Amino acid sequence: MTDLGPVTNPASAQHRLDVELGERAYPIVIGRGLLTDPEQYRPFVIGRRVMIVSNETVAPLYLEAVRQGLADFETAEVILPDGEQHKDLATLNRIFDALLEQHFGRDTTLVALGGGVVGDMAGFAAACYQRGVPFIQVPTTLLAQVDSSVGGKTGVNHPAGKNMIGAFHQPRAVIADTDTLATLPGRELSAGLAEVIKYGLIADRPFFDWLEEQAESLRALEPAALATAIARSCRNKAQVVAADEREAGQRALLNLGHTFGHAIEAGAGYGEWLHGEAVGVGLVMAARLSRRLGWLDEEAVSRVRRLVSRCGLPLVPPADLAPERWLELMAVDKKVQDGQLRLVLLRGIGEAVLTSDVDADLLRASIQSAPADAL
Amino acid sequence: MTDLGPVTNPASAQHRLDVELGERAYPIVIGRGLLTDPEQYRPFVIGRRVMIVSNETVAPLYLEAVRQGLADFETAEVILPDGEQHKDLATLNRIFDALLEQHFGRDTTLVALGGGVVGDMAGFAAACYQRGVPFIQVPTTLLAQVDSSVGGKTGVNHPAGKNMIGAFHQPRAVIADTDTLATLPGRELSAGLAEVIKYGLIADRPFFDWLEEQAESLRALEPAALATAIARSCRNKAQVVAADEREAGQRALLNLGHTFGHAIEAGAGYGEWLHGEAVGVGLVMAARLSRRLGWLDEEAVSRVRRLVSRCGLPLVPPADLAPERWLELMAVDKKVQDGQLRLVLLRGIGEAVLTSDVDADLLRASIQSAPADAL
Repeated sequence: MTDLGPVTNPASAQHRLDVELGERAYPIVIGRGLLTDPEQYRPFVIGRRVMIVSNETVAPLYLEAVRQGLADFETAEVILPDGEQHKDLATLNRIFDALLEQHFGRDTTLVALGGGVVGDMAGFAAACYQRGVPFIQVPTTLLAQVDSSVGGKTGVNHPAGKNMIGAFHQPRAVIADTDTLATLPGRELSAGLAEVIKYGLIADRPFFDWLEEQAESLRALEPAALATAIARSCRNKAQVVAADEREAGQRALLNLGHTFGHAIEAGAGYGEWLHGEAVGVGLVMAARLSRRLGWLDEEAVSRVRRLVSRCGLPLVPPADLAPERWLELMAVDKKVQDGQLRLVLLRGIGEAVLTSDVDADLLRASIQSAPADAL
Repeated sequence: MTDLGPVTNPASAQHRLDVELGERAYPIVIGRGLLTDPEQYRPFVIGRRVMIVSNETVAPLYLEAVRQGLADFETAEVILPDGEQHKDLATLNRIFDALLEQHFGRDTTLVALGGGVVGDMAGFAAACYQRGVPFIQVPTTLLAQVDSSVGGKTGVNHPAGKNMIGAFHQPRAVIADTDTLATLPGRELSAGLAEVIKYGLIADRPFFDWLEEQAESLRALEPAALATAIARSCRNKAQVVAADEREAGQRALLNLGHTFGHAIEAGAGYGEWLHGEAVGVGLVMAARLSRRLGWLDEEAVSRVRRLVSRCGLPLVPPADLAPERWLELMAVDKKVQDGQLRLVLLRGIGEAVLTSDVDADLLRASIQSAPADAL
């Protein structure tokens, strides 16, 4: 078996990573039974009042556990509707309403309890409330645990594009309790695995190899495998982010599969496709386009396609998305620089590159043949 | 006459200050005829596309001049309704709409052309658009020239409180053209002078003395006096901000008059009182409360009151604002720390202090007698 190194605490399969960002450095703790543990929160809460931001799906399952962990503090909560379609300025404003109605001052800590949408909105609310208060991420989906918790990206969607309005705001800590994945729908678990695969593809071939061995253990929620996959993904992302906090260069590699993915999500209407599902298709499309450029061999494309499929992810993009609409949706994406589309593609498994070299006709051809290629 | 030192360029009465904030340092240029001068903009525009944000009052007067100054770039504009009552998330969203409809990418520069409301909203839009793009402040009111342009505070109001939603985002440059003050209503000129007086009161007694000599020249828009007053105010504010960018300590002194002022603005309904008018009354109330504490003599209170009045500002707070409502409005203000009201008061002219020592009964008595005190 591919050895991915020891865990921090073998007895509990608990991992701890420190994201190095100077005075904004923070820890990520990954393991079981963390939600109710006061020690996970105490060092990171500023002030005595905590506003827990959650949603209608997650709050009934885990709000009590988090309240228990925060028993030393005065807590209140704001429960948002669930779903990406609510990740907008109007829903964000409900967090501000709750904070102001209850006279929360500047010495308030927000706790984001939920998936990526809750994390992005609570984080953005923390970035903007009185021009910035601290927050703690308590991600309860695999996607949020591997991805949204690292990098400090927060924000909301605009009808014209995802995450177009937001801020960089680092959490004070990330508490990733793998027990919460027990209640995660299988479709969402798979969506999270798409981001995990992405980290192997970008810059960590041994991790990709390991994932090929562990795909079934991960889908079966084997705790040690989950904790290892999350920790390794976070470490990969944290390394990129620490080197490039503001996304000038290397950080763009994290968008592997995402330019295609965002177009799928937007084209199908937010909420139809899960983000990770769209990314999974995007990874395969990026591999196929890399193949068309002669950068990847057919065997590597097959490995990507197989692993995405074994993780329970769809391979076929929406059939009703016309190529011109695809290109239009990709053009509004943040990866546009002065009208020039930049894409992240693969020169090998574990070797992603940012390129502006893609000919528009080649891209169009690749999009046109994507549904057939996927079969 | 009190000598406040030479201007940078005596021929044009042009002043230049550099706000020292490490890699976020930026210049403030103050003088005549700047709007149409390409050299004022060119070094600070990133990318080739510029979105000018202005409002319905200012755009007809100065948009063409700014377009002329930006002739090297591709410009577009978004014209907002005028007034503090539009400083909200919905109006902010119109800036995002305009940027996205016209496919503005991340390499966009925003130019804020207008008063403090335009500057705060354009700055906040720049802070949040795609998680941060550069912006340039072109303030056209005295208040914005002396105050909003320094400090990097951006944001919008919430029905429950002013500036409750925002970000710290520094402009790349501030271009303060004193010629724009020719079209400023007298009431707004006076409102700007309230902030100018504030800087003398906080930490610059020679400036306060100079203002007592120059009040009439300033109201008559004498260019050299205006440029000196603006530059000196900016320098005072820049010194505080450079020492304390995130408002942990000394920066709170800039709130002199503002806790009272915010209560007046909110209590009267946003838009009824100009911010500076409310601050002017707040300065007098802060002086009176300082007198009640025995910190200030009656002569100093009279000097504050006289200068505020000579600058054309009201002295009497709204009569229909009940003391309990005052206290409620003051409590929601950002100056609340764990339920403890902190106020900025005066130990002398040019010597402001932050204190938590104010007894609630004394504060209530001071508010109750404010209308009578002002006569």
